[in-house]
Amino acid sequence: MSKLKRNERIAAMVKILSDQPNRIFTLNYFTERFNSAKSTISEDIVIVKQSMEKMNLGRIETFSGAAGGVKYIPQTTKINNKKILSKICDQLKNSDRILPGGFLYMTDIIYSPSTTSQLGEIFASQFNYQNVDYIITVETKGIPLAMMVAKAMNLPLVILRRDSKVTEGSTISINYISGSSGNIQKMSLSKRAIKPGSRVIIIDDFMKGGGTAKGMMDMMKEFNVEVEDVGVLISTKSPDKKLVEQYVPLLILEEVKGEEGIINIYPNPEII
Amino acid sequence: MSKLKRNERIAAMVKILSDQPNRIFTLNYFTERFNSAKSTISEDIVIVKQSMEKMNLGRIETFSGAAGGVKYIPQTTKINNKKILSKICDQLKNSDRILPGGFLYMTDIIYSPSTTSQLGEIFASQFNYQNVDYIITVETKGIPLAMMVAKAMNLPLVILRRDSKVTEGSTISINYISGSSGNIQKMSLSKRAIKPGSRVIIIDDFMKGGGTAKGMMDMMKEFNVEVEDVGVLISTKSPDKKLVEQYVPLLILEEVKGEEGIINIYPNPEII
Repeated sequence: MSKLKRNERIAAMVKILSDQPNRIFTLNYFTERFNSAKSTISEDIVIVKQSMEKMNLGRIETFSGAAGGVKYIPQTTKINNKKILSKICDQLKNSDRILPGGFLYMTDIIYSPSTTSQLGEIFASQFNYQNVDYIITVETKGIPLAMMVAKAMNLPLVILRRDSKVTEGSTISINYISGSSGNIQKMSLSKRAIKPGSRVIIIDDFMKGGGTAKGMMDMMKEFNVEVEDVGVLISTKSPDKKLVEQYVPLLILEEVKGEEGIINIYPNPEII
Repeated sequence: MSKLKRNERIAAMVKILSDQPNRIFTLNYFTERFNSAKSTISEDIVIVKQSMEKMNLGRIETFSGAAGGVKYIPQTTKINNKKILSKICDQLKNSDRILPGGFLYMTDIIYSPSTTSQLGEIFASQFNYQNVDYIITVETKGIPLAMMVAKAMNLPLVILRRDSKVTEGSTISINYISGSSGNIQKMSLSKRAIKPGSRVIIIDDFMKGGGTAKGMMDMMKEFNVEVEDVGVLISTKSPDKKLVEQYVPLLILEEVKGEEGIINIYPNPEII
């Protein structure tokens, strides 16, 4: 390979760092991959750092010493959050989305990789996940979002199942009461999915009564795991008191008036 | 904002392009965002293109004319595929993964965002998805992988459900026969999830008899949709004849000998 020019090294460095957020790359990694001196790589990193900061594209952190290196951390601004979340609200306000029972059709939005990857970065900007070990969700609709949060934080995803499966080995199951419907539901998780003593963040697409999130928290207790934060894409404004005390919603759904075709939804004012 | 230097523009451009693969950004987008002349941006693009090519980090394509612009396309090399897939095989060969019934525990691998995002790029490099409209999968285990394929191709994901849900509106359901177990199973999909006449790629984590993939293909017929390709992370070597004729596996599982703790799995030789 011919030696790379500075511009070319910088282009490659941004791609490598941002493909794996929150992973520390040693300077040696780049000196070897780019066939360049350590001092040269250090100068490159300064330029990348400045560019990301000026353009609000995230942060570059450097660590000195033996375990030193550089990592990229996604970080969104409130202005950008507002832009992205308002656009999603505009999409969701279309009265065609109202389903029987006052539900909103939204899988097209929450399964879109370009939308959910932006939402993943917004969630990553709300939480301190320095000491977090896993992202937790429950099947099915929240999985794409939770996966993108996991990607932005570079943490493994764990998916709670509704039933236990032969492909997961021995499982722990719990019953929980869906906060809004009052129905008893079940969730289960492979015993080997989480190390005891870990810390986790719970991510889901929707919260009304908070029963499902509470169920996930109860499940984490079974695994002797601490829940650091709970994030949901949409929480309903009522009931005001949910089964989970602390949670961060990106959007707040105030009401759906099926007959009039009115959907009142807006970004969480605290994050925009 | 102070004017960006070339290095800084290039860093920002790589981040923006690679965050949304396969989306065309106009030159105007960059002239406005970077406050720079068109000729300057064109020169930047040439540098980014050269860097990505030299470092095997993907391709940059430019389009001239009124609808012109630039896009980033993930593209992996056979050497890199081999490295990534061999590493996954090494992880899977651990005899601790063998579950009762000869199943392999692998959710930790297929739910890992850093692994699946690489697998997403490998799949994107196998298929021509120029005219493809959706990535299709069925809940649950294949969703994280399918989401990362969808992200690499910048296509919306559609998830087939085992049961119909109130949050999806009216659905079409089919019954299909699981190729390996012979059991009758059900899958359903919201009628508004896919536009008739579309083209899709099916992605799943595992194929033995091919019954589930065949079920997804049958479902696509109900929607008057053409299946362009089928990709699976792992296909078993036997049965040799599966219910789906054309499919691309990344890994081939030859055998699992539970008693001896032997797992024989290797990368598909055609893609490494």
